[in-house]
Amino acid sequence: MRRYDKKDFPTSEIRRFLEPGPIVLVSSAHRGRTNIMTMGWHMVMEFEPSLIGCYIWTENFSFELIRRSRECVFNIPTADIAATVVRIGNTSGRDIDKFAEFGLTPVAGATVKAPMVAECFANFECRLADARMVKRYSLFVFEVVKAHVARTPKYPRTIHYRGDGVFMISGRNTSRYRRLFKPGML
Amino acid sequence: MRRYDKKDFPTSEIRRFLEPGPIVLVSSAHRGRTNIMTMGWHMVMEFEPSLIGCYIWTENFSFELIRRSRECVFNIPTADIAATVVRIGNTSGRDIDKFAEFGLTPVAGATVKAPMVAECFANFECRLADARMVKRYSLFVFEVVKAHVARTPKYPRTIHYRGDGVFMISGRNTSRYRRLFKPGML
Repeated sequence: MRRYDKKDFPTSEIRRFLEPGPIVLVSSAHRGRTNIMTMGWHMVMEFEPSLIGCYIWTENFSFELIRRSRECVFNIPTADIAATVVRIGNTSGRDIDKFAEFGLTPVAGATVKAPMVAECFANFECRLADARMVKRYSLFVFEVVKAHVARTPKYPRTIHYRGDGVFMISGRNTSRYRRLFKPGML
Repeated sequence: MRRYDKKDFPTSEIRRFLEPGPIVLVSSAHRGRTNIMTMGWHMVMEFEPSLIGCYIWTENFSFELIRRSRECVFNIPTADIAATVVRIGNTSGRDIDKFAEFGLTPVAGATVKAPMVAECFANFECRLADARMVKRYSLFVFEVVKAHVARTPKYPRTIHYRGDGVFMISGRNTSRYRRLFKPGML
C-alpha cells in the first residue's frame, strides 16, 4: 500500500475533503491500546475553529479510547484500499491490533498521541471539543488542530458508503459552476 | 427540468442517499413564506428513529423559517440541475421566491407544511427533534418522518461540494466489497 507524502494543510479548509462525505478511518490511542474504526456519519460544523461532528457507537471499541483520551485522528482513505477499509469496519480492536493485522503504518502526530495512518491521503489531528452530546446522541464534536494532506493528487478518489455493502466511488471534479457564485460565497 | 415519479421509501434506510454526502436542498415554510437553501453540512445520526443533524447558519433566511415552523424537507438534487442548486445557494429568500425564480415545483408533503421540490430525486419530510444545540452550534437535529424516492435510477448522480466553487460528481456504485462484510454488519 502506498504511503502518501504529505504537507501541512490549513485546518480551516479541510471541508474540501470532508464535506463531499467520504468514509474516514478514525484512529485513537489510550493507555497503550490503539485502534482504527471505519466511519461514515460525520459533518463539518465550523471553519474557524475547525470543528467536525461525528457519531461513534457506544459498542465500538474506539468509543472508550476516544472518550477517555479526548483525541483521535480522522484519516481519509482512497479507493485503492477499500478492501482494507471494509475489513477494519468488520473487526474489533478488542480482538486484534488493526495496524499490525492490516499492514498499516502508525505515524506520530504533531499534537495528539493518537497515531496517524500513513497509507491514508489525509490525516486530521483532532481534540475533543465538546462531549455534552455524547450521552444522548453518541455525537462527538472535535476541533481539528493540525491537518496533513498528500501533495498529489489534488483531489483523492474516495469511497462513500450507502449501506448494505454498497459504496459509491467519487467521480470527476468540476469548477464549471464557479462563475455562478457571488465573490463573497466562495 | 425533470420531475421525478416517486414512491414511499423506508425512513430507516435513507442513509443510502445521505451518507455519501451530497449537497441537499432544504425547503421550508412559515406564515406564508417559503424558501429553499443549499446545504452541505449534514450527517446521519440514527436509523430508528431516523435522525439527521445539520448546520444552518443564523444569517440564512431559512434559519428562522425552520426554527419557528419546526419543519423542513431535505430534497436531493441530481447533477443535471447543478446550476440551479448553485443559484439557490447564491441568492436569498429575503429577496426572491426561489420556487418561482428558478422554475421549481412545490409539492405538498404528507406530514409537513414545508413544500417538497418535485425536481429532486428524493424528498425527506423532517420534523425538528432537538433544538438544544442550535444556539451554540447552529446544529439542528431532525427526525425524518416520511421519505419519497424516485423509482429510477436506483442511485442518483449527485453533487458533492468541496468549497471554492468546486463540486465532485458522484461516480460509480459497487458491491464488490460486500463479501467482506459480516452478515450482522450489513
